[in-house]
Amino acid sequence: MDKTFRNVSIVGIGQIPVQKKSPLSLREMGVQAMQLAMEDAGVDAVDAVFVGNMLGDELQNQKHLAALIASAAGLRGVEALQVQAATATGAAALRMAYFAVASGEARRAIALGVEQMSSAPPDVVTAAIAKALDAERETPQGWTMLKQNARLMQLYMERYQVPASAFNGFALTAHENAFSNPNALFVGKQVTPEMIDQSRVIHAPLRLYDAAPICDGAAAVLLTRTDEARAYTDQPVNILSSSVATDWFCVEDRPKPLELYAVRRSALEAFRKANVHRSDIDIFELHDAFSIMACLTLEAVGFAPAGHGWRMAAEGQLALHGSLPIATLGGLKGRGHPIGATALYQTSEIVLQLTGKAGANQVHHPRKAMLVSVGGAASTVLTHIFGVE
Amino acid sequence: MDKTFRNVSIVGIGQIPVQKKSPLSLREMGVQAMQLAMEDAGVDAVDAVFVGNMLGDELQNQKHLAALIASAAGLRGVEALQVQAATATGAAALRMAYFAVASGEARRAIALGVEQMSSAPPDVVTAAIAKALDAERETPQGWTMLKQNARLMQLYMERYQVPASAFNGFALTAHENAFSNPNALFVGKQVTPEMIDQSRVIHAPLRLYDAAPICDGAAAVLLTRTDEARAYTDQPVNILSSSVATDWFCVEDRPKPLELYAVRRSALEAFRKANVHRSDIDIFELHDAFSIMACLTLEAVGFAPAGHGWRMAAEGQLALHGSLPIATLGGLKGRGHPIGATALYQTSEIVLQLTGKAGANQVHHPRKAMLVSVGGAASTVLTHIFGVE
Repeated sequence: MDKTFRNVSIVGIGQIPVQKKSPLSLREMGVQAMQLAMEDAGVDAVDAVFVGNMLGDELQNQKHLAALIASAAGLRGVEALQVQAATATGAAALRMAYFAVASGEARRAIALGVEQMSSAPPDVVTAAIAKALDAERETPQGWTMLKQNARLMQLYMERYQVPASAFNGFALTAHENAFSNPNALFVGKQVTPEMIDQSRVIHAPLRLYDAAPICDGAAAVLLTRTDEARAYTDQPVNILSSSVATDWFCVEDRPKPLELYAVRRSALEAFRKANVHRSDIDIFELHDAFSIMACLTLEAVGFAPAGHGWRMAAEGQLALHGSLPIATLGGLKGRGHPIGATALYQTSEIVLQLTGKAGANQVHHPRKAMLVSVGGAASTVLTHIFGVE
Repeated sequence: MDKTFRNVSIVGIGQIPVQKKSPLSLREMGVQAMQLAMEDAGVDAVDAVFVGNMLGDELQNQKHLAALIASAAGLRGVEALQVQAATATGAAALRMAYFAVASGEARRAIALGVEQMSSAPPDVVTAAIAKALDAERETPQGWTMLKQNARLMQLYMERYQVPASAFNGFALTAHENAFSNPNALFVGKQVTPEMIDQSRVIHAPLRLYDAAPICDGAAAVLLTRTDEARAYTDQPVNILSSSVATDWFCVEDRPKPLELYAVRRSALEAFRKANVHRSDIDIFELHDAFSIMACLTLEAVGFAPAGHGWRMAAEGQLALHGSLPIATLGGLKGRGHPIGATALYQTSEIVLQLTGKAGANQVHHPRKAMLVSVGGAASTVLTHIFGVE
């Protein structure tokens, strides 16, 4: 692919604290995150707003959310569209904003992610999230995202002969990093291996700590052309590449279910477009909604050989000062996973890291970071690579 | 805005017949329309698929539809994302595909629209569509799209002292053109002024014929770079511009509810980007889901002075051989309005017209066509302008 299109940079970020139950409404959360990103970039107007939200149509009876939030923010006239990719929805909003700036259609575009999961009972939320699976072939048989991931975890444990506790390192790493992140759901919470081993089995072999919590949150990033980025900030973060890949939709249709084809394909495509090698990645924000997904993602991208992803967590390689820091501000487990907002929290955290503003969680001089966002059972996967000069 | 980005052309279209109830499933409809567009362009692979669908999450319990349809079509790996803009959802999918090609991220991108409204009772469908309105300020007070349009029609009738029958020309034009369109829901159906005047009042002053029917359908277009378009077809249709604008979300917040600000803004922006004047438009495909919306759109774009939009229909100016043909293959009323698919049917029809393939409905040598897509109560509006050399 030729690379004559405009390069794109992030010049503003906005995050509101992830909470079990936000006192704000869905639209209020979105407006706040968007306004924080605009303030951060020092602008009071943008050309376009792309909104990622997965569950609002059911949990808040609200479709048409992008125009609603743009209007609530006082941005009459602005382009506003909503995008979805199941649990990777936030990353889809980032890609749309990237498209808008790279194509020249927008000079300033906001990618906003917002989700309010507290307004319905957990079973209702679980059923809504299960719509990320096949409504003809999976959900009627009782499949949910939880059950799907438990199945993959079980397969992995049998295939590689490892115990469930082998995955504990992912939860420990996430919670250790969430401890000092003021925007994290579990800020200040200490988690021990014992707590994980003794935690409730929510779907064998999955324990409570193997899964990300249901919560509320909103985050946004403001994009502009790289050649104009320094008009907004001294520390623009460049989006070196953006890519999307899909897999056979149903896990049972995949020849090798433990090999995440869409993760591998989108990651390799992102490396190629950015002309970056795996070994150049200083920070890897992955989709640790379930420990098994984090493990399989490490293997699919090639950071670990098949069957060894869990070792990286167990051996501390994924810690803040390890060889490949992940979930540096808490990940989906520790910061929280307000679905449509998650990838925008991760992008905001990457910006903090690459600009040296991650405080107690600062990784030593990172130059390049990678974000892999997983939709459903890795049926849709988006990869973004970021960098600073 | 500079115009250095790649120009984009349509090189393939696919439509399945609009039906009251399709024998196909939602995914099957989508796959068929997509495959027809690929056959029309003579390709067996694409880089990206952008899917517009408004109601599937509720009526088919299916989110994550883009990856599902891509997988069902055998396109493992392809980029696939879903986009929404209420009743303008299909146009949002077109804009995303336009972004993908214009930015250089995709060489071939499909914009697919699909909707299956037959799988639930009309009241359930109506309630789902009402989620295009404000779930805090409008739907709790009983507002639906129908009621919202009836209110605007009543306002217009009082403001300009015209009877409900003044709008009959819109239904007559649409049905006259749908008569000979094999893909139209009402193909072969003759409609007379008497039938309209005697039709059921569904929400005063709105009669049955003032509103588009609930139905099933899917349509797709295949986009590529203009400089490569002739490798696929001798008759590429160029997308001269694409634009989106929003308005204050709630009608009651608008200073002048009969002036559709988002329509005017997106249309003027589209004219400017395409360097085209209103008088250059040979065909105008508008959002005639409700006669009043068609009337107000003609006025907002400037084709008719305020209070005179209905006259253009009444006086035959909007007929196939009038000064500004609209709904040339039946419009939303006659062809049908399977919401997420509508703008892709309209785009496909524009391609047929601009390439001289519209058969009995062929307009005499059209060179430029305009599509205005209305989301909700014109809270989100997309405008696309198309042309052939």
